[in-house]
Amino acid sequence: MDITVAVDAMGGDHGTHVTVPAVLKFLKAHPEANVVLVGLKDALEAELRARHAVTGPRLRIHHATEVVMMDESPQSALKNKKDSSMRVAINLVKTGEAHACVSAGNTGALMATARFVLKTLPGIERPAIAKLLPSMRGSTCVLDLGANVDCTPQQLLQFGIMGATLVSALNHQPNPSVGLLNIGSEEIKGNDVVKQTADLLRNSQLNFHGNVEGNDIYRGVVDVVVCDGFMGNIALKASEGIAKMLGQFLKEEFTKSWWRKLLALVAYPVLSSLKHRVDPRRYNGASLLGLRGIVVKSHGGADELAFYYALEQAAEEAKSGVLHKISDMMANAVVPTPQEKSVEPQ
Amino acid sequence: MDITVAVDAMGGDHGTHVTVPAVLKFLKAHPEANVVLVGLKDALEAELRARHAVTGPRLRIHHATEVVMMDESPQSALKNKKDSSMRVAINLVKTGEAHACVSAGNTGALMATARFVLKTLPGIERPAIAKLLPSMRGSTCVLDLGANVDCTPQQLLQFGIMGATLVSALNHQPNPSVGLLNIGSEEIKGNDVVKQTADLLRNSQLNFHGNVEGNDIYRGVVDVVVCDGFMGNIALKASEGIAKMLGQFLKEEFTKSWWRKLLALVAYPVLSSLKHRVDPRRYNGASLLGLRGIVVKSHGGADELAFYYALEQAAEEAKSGVLHKISDMMANAVVPTPQEKSVEPQ
Repeated sequence: MDITVAVDAMGGDHGTHVTVPAVLKFLKAHPEANVVLVGLKDALEAELRARHAVTGPRLRIHHATEVVMMDESPQSALKNKKDSSMRVAINLVKTGEAHACVSAGNTGALMATARFVLKTLPGIERPAIAKLLPSMRGSTCVLDLGANVDCTPQQLLQFGIMGATLVSALNHQPNPSVGLLNIGSEEIKGNDVVKQTADLLRNSQLNFHGNVEGNDIYRGVVDVVVCDGFMGNIALKASEGIAKMLGQFLKEEFTKSWWRKLLALVAYPVLSSLKHRVDPRRYNGASLLGLRGIVVKSHGGADELAFYYALEQAAEEAKSGVLHKISDMMANAVVPTPQEKSVEPQ
Repeated sequence: MDITVAVDAMGGDHGTHVTVPAVLKFLKAHPEANVVLVGLKDALEAELRARHAVTGPRLRIHHATEVVMMDESPQSALKNKKDSSMRVAINLVKTGEAHACVSAGNTGALMATARFVLKTLPGIERPAIAKLLPSMRGSTCVLDLGANVDCTPQQLLQFGIMGATLVSALNHQPNPSVGLLNIGSEEIKGNDVVKQTADLLRNSQLNFHGNVEGNDIYRGVVDVVVCDGFMGNIALKASEGIAKMLGQFLKEEFTKSWWRKLLALVAYPVLSSLKHRVDPRRYNGASLLGLRGIVVKSHGGADELAFYYALEQAAEEAKSGVLHKISDMMANAVVPTPQEKSVEPQ
């Protein structure tokens, strides 16, 4: 199956200097893929020229006159930047000219624009940001990672369905297990929203494991971890923070003396294979799930390799038909009413 | 200053097998300290005998007939175990026979019992669990780590005051900086509780830095990070999870072949100094802050060394007079009313 990916080529901290070489690498590695580079035509042509590349049937440029700034508010992006590279890339997904789009632009603006342009799938109240994180047993899909600070139990159930469908489609896993992020594995733990969500998940068609704790994400206890965007974001950022600190400490220990530096040289294959294994760039590419189109968010600071992985993520999602699968799941979903009604959908 | 620490010798996964040797090590290292071992007399005497140790003026046994189970509900512990080692140890703090107590028993029961027996300090609505976590610049005090799933802005402000006072007392730092855990550093981010808390912190006498994100805990951006117990617990557990996974990966990489195993032997001093630096046992000992007495919670699975560090934490807090300092801070605290009243104290 031929896949066309629309790329917001201006997004991210490094813009075309990262997006264009990543796209070239992606096209080389994936003969079935086509890319539409969306952004300022002159800048894109200059970047391609600098890399001795030319447009052709597999690589087109789609001119867009505006750029959403990394610190621009979602409202401003929506209202004032109707011809931004971000919005035009999403439009290409809406019109069917692209199967998916990828942007390293600012998350708030991307989510707001994608939601406005594409709308949510039937039965989904709010889109969620989902990501596959490394675990001791492979990977764990965690959602929401920051799109929704407050969620109702129904919305969290929808996240569970979307996450399970994503994992099932990408990893060809028939019935992925779903856990609910909580502060203890016992049923009595947590706040009202979490308790009501557990009831909903328990009575749903999902393979619900029960409550899981923060460390279970990396233990690989379940395939999907459901939480609101506040908790998901805190868990993700805290993990990134400690991983970075440990990496820094490892580096410091191996550079403390000339003897240790020599040792690091000898141990290079080991250290480099460890680095590869936990390289966050390999896990770049978060999915904006629940929309009527595939949108993948790359880290803003992504380099060429990281952006390449976000492109692969988008292509994989398009190929696996994850969108139709979520629609089907939602159409067949038994969404029970929570036992208590104290939390109203927003 | 002489310090007496009451130890719940039966608590934790390993009971006396861990608490007694840790206490012996602690008494040896701290000539100014005394310990009261609280628990089943026979078990304690047998354990001391096995370690060729005897009681004396610096090491007493206080008999307690009951033990709180690790999975026992706080309600059951409070109601049915009035002569538990945990409760009697806390009682010794209340009566002034000990300056502090340490328990590796179950967190819920410890918090409920400590709160019931000792009561909270004036101006403090709820105690919080605080811990110093390692950072790239030393350590960061994070609270609450799981005692309170839902918090009002006023309670979060109280946590800020308690955390700042703890850091100031332990690290002799005059005006520690305080950050509010959020999903973005911008003021507009977060839910209503977080926004109102930021207003309170901004108008308080604290050195408020503003919002911080999960990774900032380990970057050491601020001295104190304030959050509700749900978020704090998720951040802590997620961090522990990824740290354990990275440690496991490092081990796997260094044992993949005989050549790599040999390399690990040669690199032993480096790996071991890294291990020491990030050894979670060195950070064992969470403070139950806001009570009229010093209570330190050790990890349930703590080994001898880890429990030793929890004992040191308790002694440090007693010596630094953190309790009186929190009282003074609260007495002088300007606790402004939040601008919006939508969130009521619970």
